[in-house]
Amino acid sequence: MATDFTQTRKQFLIPDGTIYLDGNSLGPLPIAAVDRVERMLREEWGKLLIRGWNTAGWYHSPRGIGDRVGRLIGAAAGSVVMGDTLSIKIFQALAAATALRPDRRVILSDSGNFPSDLYIAEGLIDALGKGHTLKIVEPESVESALDSTVAVMMLTEVDYRTGRLHDMARLTEQAHRHGVIAVWDLAHSAGALPVDVTGCGADFAAGCTYKYLNGGPGAPAFIYIAPKWSEQAKPILSGWMGHEAPFAFDQSYRPAPGIERMRVGTPPIMALAALSAALDVWETVDMADIRRRSQELTDLFITLAEAQCPQVSLASPRDKNQRGSQVSLRHSHAYAVMRSLIARGVIGDFRAPDTMRFGFAPLYNDEHDVRSAVSILADVLTNRLWDKPEFRTPDAVT
Amino acid sequence: MATDFTQTRKQFLIPDGTIYLDGNSLGPLPIAAVDRVERMLREEWGKLLIRGWNTAGWYHSPRGIGDRVGRLIGAAAGSVVMGDTLSIKIFQALAAATALRPDRRVILSDSGNFPSDLYIAEGLIDALGKGHTLKIVEPESVESALDSTVAVMMLTEVDYRTGRLHDMARLTEQAHRHGVIAVWDLAHSAGALPVDVTGCGADFAAGCTYKYLNGGPGAPAFIYIAPKWSEQAKPILSGWMGHEAPFAFDQSYRPAPGIERMRVGTPPIMALAALSAALDVWETVDMADIRRRSQELTDLFITLAEAQCPQVSLASPRDKNQRGSQVSLRHSHAYAVMRSLIARGVIGDFRAPDTMRFGFAPLYNDEHDVRSAVSILADVLTNRLWDKPEFRTPDAVT
Repeated sequence: MATDFTQTRKQFLIPDGTIYLDGNSLGPLPIAAVDRVERMLREEWGKLLIRGWNTAGWYHSPRGIGDRVGRLIGAAAGSVVMGDTLSIKIFQALAAATALRPDRRVILSDSGNFPSDLYIAEGLIDALGKGHTLKIVEPESVESALDSTVAVMMLTEVDYRTGRLHDMARLTEQAHRHGVIAVWDLAHSAGALPVDVTGCGADFAAGCTYKYLNGGPGAPAFIYIAPKWSEQAKPILSGWMGHEAPFAFDQSYRPAPGIERMRVGTPPIMALAALSAALDVWETVDMADIRRRSQELTDLFITLAEAQCPQVSLASPRDKNQRGSQVSLRHSHAYAVMRSLIARGVIGDFRAPDTMRFGFAPLYNDEHDVRSAVSILADVLTNRLWDKPEFRTPDAVT
Repeated sequence: MATDFTQTRKQFLIPDGTIYLDGNSLGPLPIAAVDRVERMLREEWGKLLIRGWNTAGWYHSPRGIGDRVGRLIGAAAGSVVMGDTLSIKIFQALAAATALRPDRRVILSDSGNFPSDLYIAEGLIDALGKGHTLKIVEPESVESALDSTVAVMMLTEVDYRTGRLHDMARLTEQAHRHGVIAVWDLAHSAGALPVDVTGCGADFAAGCTYKYLNGGPGAPAFIYIAPKWSEQAKPILSGWMGHEAPFAFDQSYRPAPGIERMRVGTPPIMALAALSAALDVWETVDMADIRRRSQELTDLFITLAEAQCPQVSLASPRDKNQRGSQVSLRHSHAYAVMRSLIARGVIGDFRAPDTMRFGFAPLYNDEHDVRSAVSILADVLTNRLWDKPEFRTPDAVT
C-alpha cells in the first residue's frame, strides 16, 4: 500500500496503555496541533491582533480548509466551506434544499439518521409553517418511499448506531428520478471511507470534523453544495460573513457567490488552526488504503469477537461492503461492559439501550489494537468483570 | 478605585511599540490563555480523549461559562449559555421572540444595528413566509416607531460605527408598554460598560466574546433569555445538545428546560478554554470602575484629538453618558490615515466610508496610550504622512 500507517500512527497522541476505539466519536490529538495552536495564539492573535484577519489568512481560512476537506469527499475546489456545527449546517442545507422544491411537502429521512438531524428538521418545519412533514422510515425502506411528494431526502450515509452503510450513489440517483433533492450527512463518512459527492450527484452534504478527521472536540463542521445549485441555494442563516461584501456594511443582504454564502458569523480561528494540523496527516494518505485497512481491521475484530466472546451479538452488517469503519456489539449489560473495558484501557462507547460501539481508524489503529481489545473484552465477559457497582452507575453524559 | 488596572494590563500580550485601540473589534491575547489551551489540548483531549466530555467538564462548560458571562451583564445564574456565533444566537433569539407575538408582523430595528443582525432578520422573515417586515428607522426614531403592530424590537445597545449608546432600560420599558418583545445585541456592551439585562427587563439578549471580553478570534457567542420566557421560547435551531435528553437519542425533539434549549451542536471546547482564561481577568474587576476609566480615557482622547487634530471631526457622541467605550473620528481619507496609523503602531480600524474607530479598554489601555495615539495621529495628519500609495491600496478585508 502507498500509505505508510506506521508513520501516520506516530502523528497522534495515544496514551500508554490505551487502545482507542472511539475515533468515530472523537478522534485523538494530532501531536502537531499543539504547536500549531500555540503559534496561532502567540504569533497570530498575540502579535498581529486584528491584522490576523488579513495577514495570517484568517478571513479566508473557512474556504481554504473547506477545499482540503473537499478533497477527501470528492468535492470540487470552491464547493465546501467550514463553520459552525453539523446541526447548523444541516439546517442550512435542509432549508436551502426545501426551498428548491417549493411545491412539495415531505422531508424523507430514516430511523438510522442521527437524531439531531431529525430534530433540526422538526425545528425547520415548525418555522416554515407550511405543513411540511418529516417522514421517517426504516433504512431499507427509503428507496421505496421516494416519490414525487418528497421534496428532500435527508440521510446519514453511515448509521451512527451500527455502522450500516447506505448506497449513496444509488439512493441519490433514485431520489433524482423522482425530482427529490438529496442531502447527505457525512459525519461518519469523512475520513472513514472514500466519498464522492460529485460522482454520486449529491445536492448538499455536511459533516463534522471531530470524528475521523481528528479536528478536536467541537471542531467546525463543513457544508457542500453541488455547483449546479450554488447560485440558487438560499443560506437562510444569512449572516454577514456570507454577504457578497461583508465590509460594505449594507443594510440589505446579498448572498456571496457560491459556497461562501453558507458562511454565517465570525469563524472559529483557533479551532481551524487545530483542524489544519489534523488535515496535514491526510496529505500522505490514500483513501482507498484507508478503506482497505479499515475493512481488514473491522473484519478481524468481528471474527475474533465472535470466536472469543459468545456473550455478545453483532449489531453491524457482517458484509464489509455494507458497513463503515465501526463495529457495534450488543450485550444486555452493554453499559457496564463498556465501563469495565474503559477501566482496562479499551475505549469505545455505549449507545442506549444495549450497544457497544468500536471505531477503527487506520491512521492510528492496527491489528495489535484489535487483538488486545478482543482479548480484554473476552476476559471482561467470561469473568463477569463488568458486574460491579462502579460500572453500573451511569456517567453524567455519553 | 477597587480595580487595579496596572495588574489587569499585565495579563495581556500587547506587543512592544503597539498602542492597541481595536479591542472593540478583537481583544488582545490574555497571556494565561496560551497555557490554558495547551493544557486542554495535551491533558484533556490528549489524555482523556472522549472521556473529557465528563471528566473535564466539557459537556457542561457552555452553561458554566455562560454563568460567568451572565454576571457581567446582570443575568441570573442559569439564564445564559455559550455557543455558535452572534449571528446564530440573534437568529435563535429573534425567531423565539417573533413566535411569542404570533399576531404581529413587524420586526423593528434601526440603522445603527450591526448589519449582520439585519441580514439574519431578512433570512428569518423569508423562511417564515408570513409577511413579516423588517422596519429600519433611525436610532432616534425607535421609540416613536413602537406600537402594537411591532412584534419585536431588535437593537444593538452600542452603535458599532460611532459608539452611540441606546437607553436600554427606557427603550425596553417603552417596548413593553406596547407589548413588544425586546431583543438586545450586546456585542459592544459586554465588558465595555455595566449592563443589567435583569433590571432593564430585556426579554432576549446575545453577544460575542471576542471584543471587550477578549475570548479570541471567533470565540463563542452567548445568549440570554429572561427567566419568564425560558420555558416558552422555541429554539428553532433545535439541535441535540438542546434536547431534554440528548443521549436518549429519541427521534423527536423535546426542548431542555430553560436556557439549555438554546444549545445546538457540539460545543467548541478549545475556544471555551481560551475564553475561560479570558474571563479570569474579570474576576478582580468592578464594572463600575471599567465604566469610569473608559469614560476618562474616551473623554481625554476626544479633548486631545480636537485640540491637536483639526483635520478630523468627531463622529461619536460628545456626552460620555451617550456613548460606549469607543470614539470614532471622521476624515475624508480615513482609510489611508488608519493604515498609516497602523504602520506607526497605533491600531484602530476603519469603517466605510470615512470613519476611524478607536476602542478603549481599561483592562489594558491607559492615559499614556491615549496621549501617544493622539500625538501620532496629529503627526500623521499635519504632515500628510497618510498620503502615500501604500496606504491607499485597500486590504483584502476589514
